[in-house]
Amino acid sequence: MATIDNVLANIDSNLEPAIARLFQLIEIPSISTDPAHAEECQRAAAWLADRLVALGFEASVRPTSGLPMVVAHGAAARRDVPHVLFYGHYDVQPVDPVELWQTNPFAPRIVDAPTGRQIVGRGACDDKGQLMTFLEACRAWKESGGLPCQVSILLEGEEESGSASLPEFLAANKAELKADIMLVCDTGMWDRDTPAITTMLRGLVGEEVIIRAASRDLHSGQFGGAAVNPIHVLAKIIADVRDAKGKITIPGFYDGVEELSAEVAEQWRNLPFDEAEFLGEVGLSVPAGESGRSVLEMIWSRPTCEVNGIIGGYTGPGAKTVLPAQASAKFTFRLVGRQNPVRIAENFRSFVRARLPADCKVEFISHAGSPALQLPVTSEALKRARRALQAEWGKEPVLIASGGSIPIVGAFKQSLNMDALMIGFGLDDDRIHSPNEKYEVASFHRGTRSWARVLAALAM
Amino acid sequence: MATIDNVLANIDSNLEPAIARLFQLIEIPSISTDPAHAEECQRAAAWLADRLVALGFEASVRPTSGLPMVVAHGAAARRDVPHVLFYGHYDVQPVDPVELWQTNPFAPRIVDAPTGRQIVGRGACDDKGQLMTFLEACRAWKESGGLPCQVSILLEGEEESGSASLPEFLAANKAELKADIMLVCDTGMWDRDTPAITTMLRGLVGEEVIIRAASRDLHSGQFGGAAVNPIHVLAKIIADVRDAKGKITIPGFYDGVEELSAEVAEQWRNLPFDEAEFLGEVGLSVPAGESGRSVLEMIWSRPTCEVNGIIGGYTGPGAKTVLPAQASAKFTFRLVGRQNPVRIAENFRSFVRARLPADCKVEFISHAGSPALQLPVTSEALKRARRALQAEWGKEPVLIASGGSIPIVGAFKQSLNMDALMIGFGLDDDRIHSPNEKYEVASFHRGTRSWARVLAALAM
Repeated sequence: MATIDNVLANIDSNLEPAIARLFQLIEIPSISTDPAHAEECQRAAAWLADRLVALGFEASVRPTSGLPMVVAHGAAARRDVPHVLFYGHYDVQPVDPVELWQTNPFAPRIVDAPTGRQIVGRGACDDKGQLMTFLEACRAWKESGGLPCQVSILLEGEEESGSASLPEFLAANKAELKADIMLVCDTGMWDRDTPAITTMLRGLVGEEVIIRAASRDLHSGQFGGAAVNPIHVLAKIIADVRDAKGKITIPGFYDGVEELSAEVAEQWRNLPFDEAEFLGEVGLSVPAGESGRSVLEMIWSRPTCEVNGIIGGYTGPGAKTVLPAQASAKFTFRLVGRQNPVRIAENFRSFVRARLPADCKVEFISHAGSPALQLPVTSEALKRARRALQAEWGKEPVLIASGGSIPIVGAFKQSLNMDALMIGFGLDDDRIHSPNEKYEVASFHRGTRSWARVLAALAM
Repeated sequence: MATIDNVLANIDSNLEPAIARLFQLIEIPSISTDPAHAEECQRAAAWLADRLVALGFEASVRPTSGLPMVVAHGAAARRDVPHVLFYGHYDVQPVDPVELWQTNPFAPRIVDAPTGRQIVGRGACDDKGQLMTFLEACRAWKESGGLPCQVSILLEGEEESGSASLPEFLAANKAELKADIMLVCDTGMWDRDTPAITTMLRGLVGEEVIIRAASRDLHSGQFGGAAVNPIHVLAKIIADVRDAKGKITIPGFYDGVEELSAEVAEQWRNLPFDEAEFLGEVGLSVPAGESGRSVLEMIWSRPTCEVNGIIGGYTGPGAKTVLPAQASAKFTFRLVGRQNPVRIAENFRSFVRARLPADCKVEFISHAGSPALQLPVTSEALKRARRALQAEWGKEPVLIASGGSIPIVGAFKQSLNMDALMIGFGLDDDRIHSPNEKYEVASFHRGTRSWARVLAALAM
């Protein structure tokens, strides 16, 4: 029977071959947004399925209407243990601007940095490095006597391009993918020394608003002053959506928004989080959200309304005295607690319609809708994972939130009613989605060790 | 000595050769915005100079840093008569979309329409047909005994592409171009039966506003709620610029704005102008400007603030959860009365700066600045021109305004302190700047007769 000490020793002595395997995966330029790379994506999927078969998993590449999924199942060494479903993605972001890369993004290399060795390449962290921590942990368990849990694995190829095929695939394979809990490694550490478990994700509602007025663009000399200008109408709506204290004024918007539990509020207050530094890194100094809230609340536990894009009229160089026929803006709302995405969208549409002057029409386009997710602090799986990470890092993991949404987690919750343990080993400075992406060898190594411990803890 | 009756008889009996001359000018594709047509523009200028020399003018093609001017001077038959400067332009708009033209835009033809014969071709009205009405009037006077006024003529070749060379040319040739009054034929009739004199032009101030916040685009999941969004800042400024009654709220904005004189107000009230029809033609029904003002006031005699274009963040298809680093909008102000363009721009900039939250910077780009122009109803030249047009059309000409600016008129006012009599014979349906541009033979014929009469009236 495998013991955790044997498994950890196996991981330690196999670090260099594990890095070599990760390099092989990074070398496949599996950029999902670019149709020219579709074959490379297929190749990455095949490489992973082969790798999982080599580890003794029952694994296959599964076609979708887009890029394929890799699905694998591995039996546990003993009965009556939990069944986990691990999720990762093998596709990567494009490499533009490629001239900012110091070396070929798909020729991974080791860089010796002051903080230790780093693996540099596109996908080194997001998500090839992260998913390989889990596969290497499974390998070590297999080689040491067998998996402590029943393990299923789902690796997606469209995460960076919108996960278009995922909902259909989940719906068609519910029984096969259903497990006791989901493990997701697409998140990060709190800092280099402190592990983190993400227990709250904000939801998302996207609404594009197109205001139309005159039947064509007008000359502002001929009609200016008499004809309604849709840019003005849209600006008024955007201005009205937020009051002077930063609160959203849409009726019913805060229905289902709850204050933090005392325990989490206390944890967040004690986090070494420097608001000035957080904002300062992007050239800002004053929190712009609801007055009376900390920055962590603003980005983690409070709902928002942001305009992500706006366009109307003449936007080229110089001036053009046009009075445009239409203007449009893309709104997104970040949701928390029990805010209902459908109700939020409805209330927003009513809010816009109530501000529509004569002669204006509005069209809405929905872009997304997912509720916020929350793993209760009382969850048994969460307690066990906390103990496992504490053992590896010698430090209590912090329970954090993510201001962004991870659509896949919402999809699993909605489709299979599975909660997710989101544990990852990325660092804030890993430059994911940017040139010279890296993953620290320490992240890779101790990430692998962490998963080995989490699997053990869940099985106990 | 020439009598007006002889001159008018000459015009009537020379209509067909006059149309043939206009055809020759239209046949030269003098599109000024397209550098590939520079030679054709030169050819149009040469054709006009030759034509003016043939009429006995001292005329020449005068180079500029762009396309050339044509300048001509013709002595009057007697002394102590006014000196007029006629302005026109020989360049034309591009012909795109050329597939919407029923025939070659530069092969002019006569079309028999229910309302009479029409000359169809690019520039038939704007401005070749219109400027030839003046040249043909001069020809008839010359052939009947001599010009009643001292006549100078300036024909520009860059009107449709921004008049870049004009200010420099005016500055360098002040003494030569200075006259008692300027005659401009780039305007239109009130309707088919009613001549019009444009006595008011709105001025223009253009200010582009660029709001910058964070040092780069941010992810709205990571920063949304805490980071200032420049689209929101810009929207608030646009919303604030206008109160609920449509008045502009910029301090000092209405300084120099005057109510209409009783006479003009009365004339405008009596104009057969159908507000519902004017708005209905572009799909609108409710005037959107200052409450308590007629539509004609809104577009002719009241100042405005319009946003002609706005852009920020992600504007492609679908959604992107970006919190943009900048957003920008192009504002134009239409000015009336004695509103000062420099003060308006300054006050607007202060207004924007006062609404700039912490961490935001603003950049302004000025695009235009010209005051409104007004020919007093008491002007002697105006009185005489009114009588001349009344004699030709059997109907009192209406004194109208133009909501748009005619930059050339402002340039002459500023550079040479000359007022302008703006009289033209175009009709609203002449399709200038559009495919199948036309000029009615009646506009051409009676326009020529009108100029003959105006010259006589000014000389009396």
